[in-house]
Amino acid sequence: MEDGVATRGRRGGGGAARRAERTSGKITQAGFITRNIPDYEPLTEEALEIIEANAEVILEEVGVCFPENEAALALWREAGADVDGDRVRLPRGLARNLCKTAPSQFTQIARNPERNVEIGGRNLVLAPVYGPPFVRDAGGRRYATMADFEKFVRLGHMSKWLHHSGGTVCEPTDVAVNKRHYDMLMAHMTLTDKPFMGSVTEPSRARDSIEMCDILFGGLNDRTAMVSLININSPLTFDSIMMGALEEYSRANQACIISPFIVGGAMAPVSVIGTLTQVLAEVMVGVAYSQLIRKGAPVIFGAFVTSIDMNSGAPTFGTPEAAQITYGAGQLARRMGLPYRSAGSFNGSKLPDAQAAYETANSLNAGLLAGVNFMLHACGWLEGGLVADFEKFVMDADQLGTLHKMAEGIAIDENAQAMGAIHEVGPGGHYLGCAHTQANFKQAFWKTDLFDYKPFETWADEGERDTRALASVRIEKMLANYEQPYLDPAVREALMDYVARKKASMPDAFM
Amino acid sequence: MEDGVATRGRRGGGGAARRAERTSGKITQAGFITRNIPDYEPLTEEALEIIEANAEVILEEVGVCFPENEAALALWREAGADVDGDRVRLPRGLARNLCKTAPSQFTQIARNPERNVEIGGRNLVLAPVYGPPFVRDAGGRRYATMADFEKFVRLGHMSKWLHHSGGTVCEPTDVAVNKRHYDMLMAHMTLTDKPFMGSVTEPSRARDSIEMCDILFGGLNDRTAMVSLININSPLTFDSIMMGALEEYSRANQACIISPFIVGGAMAPVSVIGTLTQVLAEVMVGVAYSQLIRKGAPVIFGAFVTSIDMNSGAPTFGTPEAAQITYGAGQLARRMGLPYRSAGSFNGSKLPDAQAAYETANSLNAGLLAGVNFMLHACGWLEGGLVADFEKFVMDADQLGTLHKMAEGIAIDENAQAMGAIHEVGPGGHYLGCAHTQANFKQAFWKTDLFDYKPFETWADEGERDTRALASVRIEKMLANYEQPYLDPAVREALMDYVARKKASMPDAFM
Repeated sequence: MEDGVATRGRRGGGGAARRAERTSGKITQAGFITRNIPDYEPLTEEALEIIEANAEVILEEVGVCFPENEAALALWREAGADVDGDRVRLPRGLARNLCKTAPSQFTQIARNPERNVEIGGRNLVLAPVYGPPFVRDAGGRRYATMADFEKFVRLGHMSKWLHHSGGTVCEPTDVAVNKRHYDMLMAHMTLTDKPFMGSVTEPSRARDSIEMCDILFGGLNDRTAMVSLININSPLTFDSIMMGALEEYSRANQACIISPFIVGGAMAPVSVIGTLTQVLAEVMVGVAYSQLIRKGAPVIFGAFVTSIDMNSGAPTFGTPEAAQITYGAGQLARRMGLPYRSAGSFNGSKLPDAQAAYETANSLNAGLLAGVNFMLHACGWLEGGLVADFEKFVMDADQLGTLHKMAEGIAIDENAQAMGAIHEVGPGGHYLGCAHTQANFKQAFWKTDLFDYKPFETWADEGERDTRALASVRIEKMLANYEQPYLDPAVREALMDYVARKKASMPDAFM
Repeated sequence: MEDGVATRGRRGGGGAARRAERTSGKITQAGFITRNIPDYEPLTEEALEIIEANAEVILEEVGVCFPENEAALALWREAGADVDGDRVRLPRGLARNLCKTAPSQFTQIARNPERNVEIGGRNLVLAPVYGPPFVRDAGGRRYATMADFEKFVRLGHMSKWLHHSGGTVCEPTDVAVNKRHYDMLMAHMTLTDKPFMGSVTEPSRARDSIEMCDILFGGLNDRTAMVSLININSPLTFDSIMMGALEEYSRANQACIISPFIVGGAMAPVSVIGTLTQVLAEVMVGVAYSQLIRKGAPVIFGAFVTSIDMNSGAPTFGTPEAAQITYGAGQLARRMGLPYRSAGSFNGSKLPDAQAAYETANSLNAGLLAGVNFMLHACGWLEGGLVADFEKFVMDADQLGTLHKMAEGIAIDENAQAMGAIHEVGPGGHYLGCAHTQANFKQAFWKTDLFDYKPFETWADEGERDTRALASVRIEKMLANYEQPYLDPAVREALMDYVARKKASMPDAFM
């Protein structure tokens, strides 16, 4: 899979390419990012060693809890941990040692092989917002529905810089809690051909996700087709539902993000280095546990960390402390040789306004330079994650293009040096017309598909539209141009049968 | 001068401190930033050597122009350059060698010694937007007036994260072109006690600026009291008016930013490395020339670089190419041992909306990590620099706080490690009440003075205000709390006399 942008169908000549060409018209899609730039690493060797040593002390002396999970406790006992009630204390080095069998990079397949993503190494895969119960658009804020969910999946499919369709892009609150994962998976499987995430809200729903993938991919055969989000109940608690989902996925060689969910000052100490220590301890245990389930199961070192507004108690986003933790956790993940998940379109604003954009840009920039490999929430996040915002989705998705260009790095070949142009133009001249400019301008600069650079008068004549208004127009245009990617009708029918059968087997539950 | 925030009057006990305490009430001001974090350096040694070698080739083979400046040409001839008409070609190494006498760091004094700034080294000094002919506020966009200018200076004085009052914060278009520098300088000298910039639009106005500083400071005696902006007319042209101002300032040991003004693709090649090569060649000549005027004159390596939208021809801001150049030019400046100016609240939006904020945050973040020492335009820039926006001024000025916190770096002492807290809280516990949190929460997290983190219902009840609306409120509050800093009435009178005498000596000019 190459970096950069390719128009579908221009690549390769295989069946997949032909199918893509036949079915998806003129959608231009970028490959996942491969960084040609260094990581930003503010933690010194001394700081890293302190964190790593302290994390071992936590695991040995404080330990972690695996409540209501006898099977997990048995595995830990067998692995050499000290198990006391549901408290697990790990001798120094045990967790880190178990983590060594986790792969440093893995492929997540998509049903269109051109959309496969490589997670780990120098790569960065971008996925949309996850989890909000509300949506917002020009009409205001309301509970999310399955129709909203499908609209987001279509927009994600049409977003050139988005490599992944994500998971619970918003919570479809109009569908029963115990059945909505079927509808969400159907949307990801049929409305797009990008890779996606599985359900984690019950172990049985993880199993359902795997069974549906088995149908979609004609047998998974240990191929990794899902990346799913396993949150740790910080501090130091691994609840049995999330662990149950992890167990299902790891057993089937499906990838999990092992991710402490931390509001700094509430679920972790108020200091950056204290938080990083706890994050490392928690991730080591989660990853080690995945390897106890199945050696070599793909996992991702996750860090979802925000600060807290000590006055209101509200979580805050895009702050300098969050950036420091994002950089630091990246260093820790690389020292463990694990793919890294962090950052996103985080912000605490109620509207897709300047606050939302400052905070989002702070987080996106930190994520790129921190060496993040999988960025969940890369677009659409609003109001501290309570809201998936349609306008912000397309605004953020446009900005994700800047990450692609930054990551390309700086070419230094003869053409890039442009000495001929400098000689040709000379003092007081103009580069617009010169041969080098003519040959290079099309690829030279990243170009927004959203922002306004029109002359003031044109902009005023067109109604003085702000970014939100431009985004509204873009949403309609993207949806109007949307084309559903081809899926073998037999596969679609098999999926529909599976879902109908499953849904019929249980009453609706709304809790 | 320490980093961090200190309430005026708490520092030191000298006369200046007492005067500040007496006159400026409860204004809290941050000291300039001193970085405890590494720089981000994407250019490899190979890339840097290519750029440096190519810059020497440009100077030797293409040369630069000093039109209508016989004195400059004579100096260059004397220094060993090849002068042909107004074209100056510099033998390899000449410019770089001349640059060596420029200081790597210098102090710019303010009339309140607590506001002195150290420019260079690991420091970052933040100054407001410079040059826009228009202003915008809640009422819309209009030509800037002297009343707007004074309002900006007051807001700058009240902005805790802003270390510098800047120069032409907006163009006071209601004052004659040949007299407005007097009024602007009077505003900087009397409405704030932060450091400021001098006039560069005529050599005589640079002389006036120096004479007014002589009055304000009771004799300058070679102390550096101004940093002024000398733009190079890229490509490779040094116009005689700007050079005339540089000559005046350098002779008087006043600092100049030597700054190519480049819209990439128009005034420089469309490639990052080609642009960096031209920037380096131009800055080397400008700095070398300042040292021909006076060895040891303080100067700053400037890089104002934006891309161009190849469709509309409009300059674009906050782009990945601009960030790459900002990082790269920082590396080049440090290799020359020169203070570095770049980045700012750049954006191309017509409104202080999401576009404005994304682009601004991209540039501010790049500026911090690029090792910028003097950031002009750090707040208030809108519409590609055509507009100084009041709301954006306070939005950006608030965000500048994040740069302070990021730059502090990550503490690793025992308190920061927080192992006691982690032991105390344990699995499943809560950190809000623990002793470590109580002792540290006040300093733990950077806190916005502007953004909204209220509960949704409170925010809705208060009128669903966006960032602009919150900024409007903040502007009024800051102006209501403004107190003019004390200035010796005799000095004020002497300045007023000087200005009155000078203004009376010439007719108004409006071109």
